[in-house]
Amino acid sequence: MLERVEAMTTEALMADIGQRARAAGRILATAPGEVKDRALRAMAAAVREAAPEILDGNARDVDAMKANGQTAAFLDRGTLTEERIEAIAAALEDIVALKDPVGDVIAAWERPNGLKIERVRTPLGVIGVIYESRPNVTADAGALCLKAGNAVVLRGGSDTIHSNRAIHASLQKGLAVAGLPEDAIQIVPVTDRAAVGEMLKGLNGNLDVIVPRGGRSLVERVQTEARVPVFAHLEGLVHIFVDKSADLDKAVAIVKNSKLRRTGICGALETLLVHKDIAGSHLPAILDALNQEGCEIRGDDGIRAFGPGILEATEEDWSTEYLDKILSAMIVPDLDTAIAHIAKYGSNHTDCIITEDQAAADRFQAEVDSAIVLHNASTQFADGGEFGMGAEIGIATGRMHARGPVGVEQLTSFKYKVHGTGQTRP
Amino acid sequence: MLERVEAMTTEALMADIGQRARAAGRILATAPGEVKDRALRAMAAAVREAAPEILDGNARDVDAMKANGQTAAFLDRGTLTEERIEAIAAALEDIVALKDPVGDVIAAWERPNGLKIERVRTPLGVIGVIYESRPNVTADAGALCLKAGNAVVLRGGSDTIHSNRAIHASLQKGLAVAGLPEDAIQIVPVTDRAAVGEMLKGLNGNLDVIVPRGGRSLVERVQTEARVPVFAHLEGLVHIFVDKSADLDKAVAIVKNSKLRRTGICGALETLLVHKDIAGSHLPAILDALNQEGCEIRGDDGIRAFGPGILEATEEDWSTEYLDKILSAMIVPDLDTAIAHIAKYGSNHTDCIITEDQAAADRFQAEVDSAIVLHNASTQFADGGEFGMGAEIGIATGRMHARGPVGVEQLTSFKYKVHGTGQTRP
Repeated sequence: MLERVEAMTTEALMADIGQRARAAGRILATAPGEVKDRALRAMAAAVREAAPEILDGNARDVDAMKANGQTAAFLDRGTLTEERIEAIAAALEDIVALKDPVGDVIAAWERPNGLKIERVRTPLGVIGVIYESRPNVTADAGALCLKAGNAVVLRGGSDTIHSNRAIHASLQKGLAVAGLPEDAIQIVPVTDRAAVGEMLKGLNGNLDVIVPRGGRSLVERVQTEARVPVFAHLEGLVHIFVDKSADLDKAVAIVKNSKLRRTGICGALETLLVHKDIAGSHLPAILDALNQEGCEIRGDDGIRAFGPGILEATEEDWSTEYLDKILSAMIVPDLDTAIAHIAKYGSNHTDCIITEDQAAADRFQAEVDSAIVLHNASTQFADGGEFGMGAEIGIATGRMHARGPVGVEQLTSFKYKVHGTGQTRP
Repeated sequence: MLERVEAMTTEALMADIGQRARAAGRILATAPGEVKDRALRAMAAAVREAAPEILDGNARDVDAMKANGQTAAFLDRGTLTEERIEAIAAALEDIVALKDPVGDVIAAWERPNGLKIERVRTPLGVIGVIYESRPNVTADAGALCLKAGNAVVLRGGSDTIHSNRAIHASLQKGLAVAGLPEDAIQIVPVTDRAAVGEMLKGLNGNLDVIVPRGGRSLVERVQTEARVPVFAHLEGLVHIFVDKSADLDKAVAIVKNSKLRRTGICGALETLLVHKDIAGSHLPAILDALNQEGCEIRGDDGIRAFGPGILEATEEDWSTEYLDKILSAMIVPDLDTAIAHIAKYGSNHTDCIITEDQAAADRFQAEVDSAIVLHNASTQFADGGEFGMGAEIGIATGRMHARGPVGVEQLTSFKYKVHGTGQTRP
């Protein structure tokens, strides 16, 4: 492949990748579940066996990252270890354990004329994944797409190109073991931005959806420029509203867990809204729990009355996803104001109400237009694994096709099978 | 509205329409089913009451169409009568009878930690409908979108602008009776192509999906230029494969009905593939049934051996949607060749196998990548009403979100409601 590449323009190369992916997708679409699972198990074995080569490739990447002066966090995301390679192999085996969604009968009914109609899951086709820094995405995304019968075109960041190539070689070995086409999982062999541009244009109709995995600027570029559907979220500006009927203990535990269990994930709490009627009874304990963990609070005047150390929140704070030990907080007069605040500043990702009043919970969950709306539970449950979907390729906040965690079922489409006995239409 | 329009550029006008639609959509999203149904019933009454005004407007349109030298078929589609107006009103009442999809629990499950997760239908948001010549689309599309809790921006063809405006006025009356925002159903008050261009760009993020209703050139422009998702089919290049195990009587009845019941609809048969083993036994009766109705046959050499009057099919015939009393036909050696032909020339819309061999039917229905794949039934059943979905806004051949008939359920999205009792994530 690499020799071929050098003689081709990026445009021609990407067109070729698209055609190969479409052809492979047609074969995958009817591949039996046990064949796909055989490939996945062989991939896991190949990853374990190739651990030295993967570590070698990764060492080259890490050296280059260091030379480029990347941050410690970036280096951490890009670095592989024996343990992390074992985790990649184990994740491939976890995907084996998922149910094959292809062929699932989603709905079935019979018409008065005797026609039996079934709505049956089919693969989506060809999925493009554009990602940064984390080499494990090569295996995770490749395997999830395969499980759902889709071909995939992977375009990882240049920072981890050698790690990605080494992992990809193991995936190809797995495909070969199962007799599946090697073009089922392709990796873009060049690192120029023009290759991404070709993917955003849809590879001449040979790319059905794009999943960006990475920082805000990557997601923003993909959402703005893509001519094909995108499964993504730009940010998780997650709110909790502590209602006037909130249970104090639940409020303290849920707010603390939502903000601090892990601050860097998209389901982490960013803005706390507190009903004025229980600010006096509930806020001190909530603030105390956050303070103990060193969380900075930026509040409106109402919040600042509860502590001398609370910074003043600016307008910008209400639309900032900190992904850090910082929380913006506000006192609100009622449920309507909380819902309106979330409509104005939220990101349609995940929001939560804490209340013992079922009517308030019902209204909040109906009116807040987010992919995930929780009642009395931590926002950190916003995750495909926690939802019981198995692995996820990301979380989507759009309203089309996939919303919330994008697991193997969300990577499928469907068709109607109509079973007749000679019926004609009057 | 019209006075305001004159002082605005098309861009500003359309941006304003988009903003109003989004605001109205937010209100519609939580409107109870009975309120939406009250509006629909009031619309039906208003359409009946306004029949004279609608006929007046239509007379102006018809005069202009005649002056522009439009074809008889075009004039027929654009002409309203008392009966057609009654049909529009009755169709509005049919939509009342459909189940409100919003709030439907599509799936529900409980996690080991006690979290109860529900996947609940929500409206999509704002839908744009771009259509030509048929004034009834104004009411049908407006009402279907409303039923699913969506705001809609209607852009009808300039040829029927006065008819559309008169019908739209009745829809607005119905919204007012139910206390719903008049911006829930807006009609673009200008007829320049730039307005369509603004819709294709997505009205600054205020349009979630576009549905084109009209001829091939309209659909092609929308599919090529739209920056938002499109629910559409470019054509219905429908195939029937008469397998070697086909029952003769079923084959004759289904082929005849599929081709000739109505030749102008997207589910009408266009290409017949006949297994070589039963050509001798089955083809004469099939051809005879078609000949009796004056259907022209264009065949390959194998087919032409069965009749002196059969024209020679050219390469172009295999990719032509006639929408007329013309059928292309070919002898194929086996099921694989039939499936490969459909993959090459088909339009992913509707295809059918006639066979008594269940294994052949299973393979055909699994491997043919079309929205609707039938076994032993007429392709003219490719219709939302015939599927039991009630009214449809069109048929989609894409793989994203909606596929096949697009009814009221397909005009929805979903959210996850998570019900907890204080759970935090370990």
